[in-house]
Amino acid sequence: MSDAAPLADVSRLSFNQATSERSSLHEVVESCARNGVPSVAMWRHKLQEIGVEAAARLVRDAGVRVSSVCRGGMFPALTAAERALRIDDTRRAIDEAAAVGAEVLVLVCGAAADRDIAAARAMVADGIAAIVPHAAAAGIRLGIEPLHPAFAGDRSCITTTREARLLAERFDAATVGVIVDVYHVWWDPERDAEIALLGNRIAGYHVNDWLVPARDVLLGRGMMGDGVIELRAIRGVVERTGYAGLIEVEIFNEKIWDLPLDELMVLAKERFVQYA
Amino acid sequence: MSDAAPLADVSRLSFNQATSERSSLHEVVESCARNGVPSVAMWRHKLQEIGVEAAARLVRDAGVRVSSVCRGGMFPALTAAERALRIDDTRRAIDEAAAVGAEVLVLVCGAAADRDIAAARAMVADGIAAIVPHAAAAGIRLGIEPLHPAFAGDRSCITTTREARLLAERFDAATVGVIVDVYHVWWDPERDAEIALLGNRIAGYHVNDWLVPARDVLLGRGMMGDGVIELRAIRGVVERTGYAGLIEVEIFNEKIWDLPLDELMVLAKERFVQYA
Repeated sequence: MSDAAPLADVSRLSFNQATSERSSLHEVVESCARNGVPSVAMWRHKLQEIGVEAAARLVRDAGVRVSSVCRGGMFPALTAAERALRIDDTRRAIDEAAAVGAEVLVLVCGAAADRDIAAARAMVADGIAAIVPHAAAAGIRLGIEPLHPAFAGDRSCITTTREARLLAERFDAATVGVIVDVYHVWWDPERDAEIALLGNRIAGYHVNDWLVPARDVLLGRGMMGDGVIELRAIRGVVERTGYAGLIEVEIFNEKIWDLPLDELMVLAKERFVQYA
Repeated sequence: MSDAAPLADVSRLSFNQATSERSSLHEVVESCARNGVPSVAMWRHKLQEIGVEAAARLVRDAGVRVSSVCRGGMFPALTAAERALRIDDTRRAIDEAAAVGAEVLVLVCGAAADRDIAAARAMVADGIAAIVPHAAAAGIRLGIEPLHPAFAGDRSCITTTREARLLAERFDAATVGVIVDVYHVWWDPERDAEIALLGNRIAGYHVNDWLVPARDVLLGRGMMGDGVIELRAIRGVVERTGYAGLIEVEIFNEKIWDLPLDELMVLAKERFVQYA
């Protein structure tokens, strides 16, 4: 643990609104501003409730940055027509991210539609290639997020940091990077070596925790400090690549969703400094 | 899928008794014999209900082979004294496996006791080194089972086929092999390459399925054919290493546990031939 990072600085905290799924974007942005949290990460279903113009005005008026918009991707599908729709939808996500002033569009790549995971991986690569010019033109960086292998059947055939890196390296680093979320990568025996190899490809860093025992992998994420992830050690590896960007707190958990928003925001700040 | 294996042969089926957790070992062995299932895999808590002598007599009288006993391992612990207890317990597991005529003792390696997964991995390597002489003397092969990364926090810090292979390769192949369970390895982008590299290290092959959507990773395993794993393709890769041993059906699932044992045994046979 000698290489662990020092205390995290709240100036780097971005509150991913999925952490308070029952709140509106308006409520989350206002709470960030009220509690000195400098940045927010948006989800499209929340963004679309108020529209991109209103969302852009909301964060501008509140003086809150937008670390990322989630998500584009879900590229694999049974038919070419459906795959084209997914690509078109991700182009729209790029436009939405640009409109709200986000730095990154997070890509959740999608799973095989028919058991053939190798074919799904090829569809993901094709999908990213198809949207890269649009992202470059819009000035939006794409962040490929490898998801924990527990989601390989329904959310992402891209599961390891290495796989995400090799995929990203097919493209310009300014346009295609990788999101490192501790929940997804903490277990990997090649974790530290692969994060180091990402270098300037790191497009975002997400923190939360892995609770034990693990049962519900979708909605069982923990608040930083409540689980078994070596958070500060991993942040040390991330920061030694030169990454000095925002750090998102992103937690899917019914119990955390039940907390009053301001109480949650204060808790997230405290735990961020203490553990992240 | 051109390299997929042909239909599975029932003569290679071993029914892992965890698939019928509410049944006794006696009931499972009798049902195997009654239904033409040639082999069983035992769990120690079931074995200990009747004792190893009775269990050995049971399978001998029924003419049922024993593919494996599960489990030894769980090596990482906070204190040296506790680690020594785990090693002693695994030596006893080796003796039990030998007493019932099992071919393999499955090792579930254990998770970090204190967040330090690198230290846990070192404790696993030390633990295996400590038991190898005993296993060799007893004629029991140890099967390191990499578990799905969803279990990295509570059951095994050894999560990938590669990591299990590199660990096994420190020892003689006759004494230390690797268990390939599709549930644990199906998602891995290096799956096929790593299984091929196992060569004569494959100490067992386990089948089941990954249900979608996945929520409960512990008790949400599926019957072969009900999920998204490319079973026959993986078996093709396993068999091209030369592996011609038993194939265990091992399914942890409350709904499957609710099935009457003979009905489940017939279903497992059918699905084994049709999908495994």
